[in-house]
Amino acid sequence: MKKGATDESVKGVVSAAEKRGYTARPIPGGDRVSIGILYNKGSVDAGSFMGLEGVKEVIPVTKPYKLVSRELKNENTVVKVGTVLFGDGSMPVIAGPCAIESEEQALTIAEAVKKSGAAMFRGGAFKPRTSPYDFQGLGRKGLEILAKVREKTGLPVATEVMDIDNFDLVEEYADVIQIGTRNMQNFSLLKRAGKSKKPVILKRGMSAMLQEWLMAAEYIMEEGNDQVILCERGIRTFVRHSRNTLDLSVVPAVKKESHLPIIIDPSHAAGVRDQVTPLACASVAVRSDGLMVEVHHKPEEAMSDGAQSLYPDQFETLMQMVNRIHAITGSFV
Amino acid sequence: MKKGATDESVKGVVSAAEKRGYTARPIPGGDRVSIGILYNKGSVDAGSFMGLEGVKEVIPVTKPYKLVSRELKNENTVVKVGTVLFGDGSMPVIAGPCAIESEEQALTIAEAVKKSGAAMFRGGAFKPRTSPYDFQGLGRKGLEILAKVREKTGLPVATEVMDIDNFDLVEEYADVIQIGTRNMQNFSLLKRAGKSKKPVILKRGMSAMLQEWLMAAEYIMEEGNDQVILCERGIRTFVRHSRNTLDLSVVPAVKKESHLPIIIDPSHAAGVRDQVTPLACASVAVRSDGLMVEVHHKPEEAMSDGAQSLYPDQFETLMQMVNRIHAITGSFV
Amino acid sequence: MKKGATDESVKGVVSAAEKRGYTARPIPGGDRVSIGILYNKGSVDAGSFMGLEGVKEVIPVTKPYKLVSRELKNENTVVKVGTVLFGDGSMPVIAGPCAIESEEQALTIAEAVKKSGAAMFRGGAFKPRTSPYDFQGLGRKGLEILAKVREKTGLPVATEVMDIDNFDLVEEYADVIQIGTRNMQNFSLLKRAGKSKKPVILKRGMSAMLQEWLMAAEYIMEEGNDQVILCERGIRTFVRHSRNTLDLSVVPAVKKESHLPIIIDPSHAAGVRDQVTPLACASVAVRSDGLMVEVHHKPEEAMSDGAQSLYPDQFETLMQMVNRIHAITGSFV
Amino acid sequence: MKKGATDESVKGVVSAAEKRGYTARPIPGGDRVSIGILYNKGSVDAGSFMGLEGVKEVIPVTKPYKLVSRELKNENTVVKVGTVLFGDGSMPVIAGPCAIESEEQALTIAEAVKKSGAAMFRGGAFKPRTSPYDFQGLGRKGLEILAKVREKTGLPVATEVMDIDNFDLVEEYADVIQIGTRNMQNFSLLKRAGKSKKPVILKRGMSAMLQEWLMAAEYIMEEGNDQVILCERGIRTFVRHSRNTLDLSVVPAVKKESHLPIIIDPSHAAGVRDQVTPLACASVAVRSDGLMVEVHHKPEEAMSDGAQSLYPDQFETLMQMVNRIHAITGSFV
Repeated sequence: MKKGATDESVKGVVSAAEKRGYTARPIPGGDRVSIGILYNKGSVDAGSFMGLEGVKEVIPVTKPYKLVSRELKNENTVVKVGTVLFGDGSMPVIAGPCAIESEEQALTIAEAVKKSGAAMFRGGAFKPRTSPYDFQGLGRKGLEILAKVREKTGLPVATEVMDIDNFDLVEEYADVIQIGTRNMQNFSLLKRAGKSKKPVILKRGMSAMLQEWLMAAEYIMEEGNDQVILCERGIRTFVRHSRNTLDLSVVPAVKKESHLPIIIDPSHAAGVRDQVTPLACASVAVRSDGLMVEVHHKPEEAMSDGAQSLYPDQFETLMQMVNRIHAITGSFV
Repeated sequence: MKKGATDESVKGVVSAAEKRGYTARPIPGGDRVSIGILYNKGSVDAGSFMGLEGVKEVIPVTKPYKLVSRELKNENTVVKVGTVLFGDGSMPVIAGPCAIESEEQALTIAEAVKKSGAAMFRGGAFKPRTSPYDFQGLGRKGLEILAKVREKTGLPVATEVMDIDNFDLVEEYADVIQIGTRNMQNFSLLKRAGKSKKPVILKRGMSAMLQEWLMAAEYIMEEGNDQVILCERGIRTFVRHSRNTLDLSVVPAVKKESHLPIIIDPSHAAGVRDQVTPLACASVAVRSDGLMVEVHHKPEEAMSDGAQSLYPDQFETLMQMVNRIHAITGSFV
Repeated sequence: MKKGATDESVKGVVSAAEKRGYTARPIPGGDRVSIGILYNKGSVDAGSFMGLEGVKEVIPVTKPYKLVSRELKNENTVVKVGTVLFGDGSMPVIAGPCAIESEEQALTIAEAVKKSGAAMFRGGAFKPRTSPYDFQGLGRKGLEILAKVREKTGLPVATEVMDIDNFDLVEEYADVIQIGTRNMQNFSLLKRAGKSKKPVILKRGMSAMLQEWLMAAEYIMEEGNDQVILCERGIRTFVRHSRNTLDLSVVPAVKKESHLPIIIDPSHAAGVRDQVTPLACASVAVRSDGLMVEVHHKPEEAMSDGAQSLYPDQFETLMQMVNRIHAITGSFV
Repeated sequence: MKKGATDESVKGVVSAAEKRGYTARPIPGGDRVSIGILYNKGSVDAGSFMGLEGVKEVIPVTKPYKLVSRELKNENTVVKVGTVLFGDGSMPVIAGPCAIESEEQALTIAEAVKKSGAAMFRGGAFKPRTSPYDFQGLGRKGLEILAKVREKTGLPVATEVMDIDNFDLVEEYADVIQIGTRNMQNFSLLKRAGKSKKPVILKRGMSAMLQEWLMAAEYIMEEGNDQVILCERGIRTFVRHSRNTLDLSVVPAVKKESHLPIIIDPSHAAGVRDQVTPLACASVAVRSDGLMVEVHHKPEEAMSDGAQSLYPDQFETLMQMVNRIHAITGSFV
């Protein structure tokens, strides 16, 4: 409350809180009175109090999430995709091209990344593109190619779903369903993902606060799907030397707040090839639960994101570094 | 190209460009050679060249948008919603609560804002909320209330569509369909909006660059709907004294690049009531094409965004200031 | 405190607080215990408690500033520069070139802006430049030119001080001393400014929070100089269509927290000429206490910031719009 | 140039360029004419051309820095502080408290960090603090304590200089002089540092672009001091789960552009203790040239930044992890 707020205005706030079913308790201080909102289930809408007479500030204390919270469930969630585990202390790497372009392209890359030790294959069939004139993906044909890759290499496949209309189709083919950055707060899509039996990779929105990201995961879990993998992919900042700024402090921050596994996509954060391997090594060192990396055998001819795709031999080096750094950080748990 | 790039690497880039159907022309300079990509239709994917040998930087020159561009169409687009015009030099104000809560609430507010001079009524029936535990809107019931408001007050109504599944329903009731901040790059939704006969308000994403926003409008226009109103509502920055930072420089920037009208929503940018009227006045002074303002007769009991909703008498003052400032700026065109 | 924090850890925090001279009071809630720090003079360092056992979060409630605070002094401070007043409800405009280049240039511009109604002349003698190879200003010669401008036109002059070494010199010539964006947290310079008899314009740092800016003003006031004018000039964001993003919501936010006057510099925020007049109009409409605008008679030949300088006839139009908008907003106080 | 720009306006731009001593060459394209500015020494001021008739955009190509540039000097600069080397492939760690509080405090911490393998000691004698009411450091007394620490432990010492007035004094005591975040563009201080015989650690400004940071280093080198160590310490973003966002992509970006060594300060970026070790590991993995870490034996009683200071045993673990990760990444050069 403001300095010198009247008893009446204090009572007004208490009564407004009680009308909403909360318990409110005035706490006198030196200069001013504070009012605690107690015994609330879930979060309190700050806005309900901000405009009341005598109120100076409304400061939220309780976190609004439940199911994703480590307070509710202390042990780490381990998400299984086939035999691949996320969150058990291993370091699975998902690799592949940005977009599926042809069967030959997909198989060539899949075999290369498998040989280097990738645990899973990725590739887009439906591509969210800033421009309507850019390549939008092969659609169903792309999904069929993914199925062939899985069949021939044994690698589980990850691919993105862009809308509810194609959800059934993507769900049929994918081993893990990816929800992209631009859809992190597409709440209808999140609810649909919550009804899926397949695990979900939930990418962080480009300007999402930690709490908003965890609430998006809460949408999925609330509908019954607890197999959620968070994926940091860079945030939008003033910086221009990389496409986005990879926020690695979010890894310890997520682990403190939530039991869900978190993986890192250094390729989209970097936007340029020569930052990908250093950032991948850093992502392992900060103790994330996995990586997602773009690889292309002919990046200069790629139909999207060629500039950030590693050549297969660069990926081979990355895997060696990643595995050795992971062995060290693992030994310090 | 890098300093000392070989003739061979220059030829490599030229040939890569030609493979993609472009014309490439080397331009020798003092220290280094530049290569211009010419006669391209639409934008060139910078990524295609970034990794090639000898390449130092790729700098896009052509803008990727066409239909939204003022280069293509010089005169301002005027969007009509009933008799209300956006883009003709008038200053229509859309006002109403964040969410439709009841018929009584909606009608009370609608009559108040109409009396003060609002041109259109707004209210959410489907609400995108960060938390799955927050009020999600009345859905179809909310749309029916909007129809009654229109019938009784004569005001056209604006309301948000959240997904493709509800698009037909929202389209049936709304006079203008709003696509929210979090859906600015929900490309499936944009394409569906492009097939609508109703005008669309396209809110700017919280961290959208001008070009991304215009490209989102391009998605709608590409499908055949040219009745698009852009709406600035604040961007995400490091600032904490307002919920978002209202970016008013985007108004002259949009008008330079595009022929589409642009309106401002100061309520969501501010997040607190006492910044709304000053920012609304500023929005008019910067020559936007309209305003969208949240008003509630009992904001302390509002089911969402109460803290930023004006009381009806505050809105009355806002309208007086807005109309008088608009009269002045209009006289300087 | 965390859920299930032991009584012992609660006592530990209370005792840590008392060691630092505070009064600490545990406040039991539904799920967890909170501990209020009361009767503190000035701000409490959150860091002192963050690492203690059982502590989940530390949330500051008291504001750290005193002298700049409206709680301490409710009426607006009016800063006088000659006969020009900032903070009394008038709308003084400071205009001139980015840098003083010659006597002829300065006088030509000064006479033009005076004719249009500018209240004060501005021009840099010492220029902070990103590159050591860029024009650094005329130094003492520039100050002497400023003195001539004042003598011939009667306009008070504003100019920037870059370091303590030149402070005496700048102080001798300037009617109001400007501390630039990059020096907002140059605490030695702030303290020196606090000992000056001349009023100070304190520009906001490019990424300064409101509280940091007010604390910078507190440094000046603490040393005895209460003639401080705050100046918003745009903040650094991800946006690229303007050089910086003008944060107009800071005007009502400053006025709520502080009694100091606040003016706006739309020229540096915009970085391009065609956004300056719209942003200037918006700055008046949002009820700032003055403007600072760059004007040059030959901007294409200017030695710095030519692209954002208005031509004299554009400034003439700006002044007409500004005065008429100010007349309106003033009538609504 | 704009579409349909006249020959006359093209000639106008060419002539404006030539007036400034550049060579300008029109390059006709499909839709529009571009004009290249060639044979320029140093950067071209974009502003000089932006306002000319017919000009649509000005795109800088040449980088404005020279001495810091890898184009000028290809091999890495190795900075020597006593026997400690930065930039030679080793991983020196600078550790110590935020502020020197007493001889006992400094010696206790110095001996602890030395035992764990720190190469250098850090501690502030002059502290830049947001609030004038916070502890400002012991001044000269602090420097004398640093000298004792060096004498007793043999560790070289790093400490911050805040202004020109104290430069001689700090220079006398420090083995390496630190220029803080808030002073990155205090150009007078940079010039003074350029005249020093001591090496300089130049921290990145909280919202500095890569180019601005390198230009700040250029100021120091231009005056004759080429012993500059860059230090990344987190940038200001919208994020609230850490104090600042550590930008690790800047490490490969700096190494591409410049020959100068770059170290990382994870403590100030994190702002909370439990993120420091993970971020330190990541900083090594991304191939930086050193670390700067805050350590305090009684952080809960520290006079500043206690919350982010590691306990000595945590620092011991950090050193073990850091050394083992560095051994791996080193083996892949």
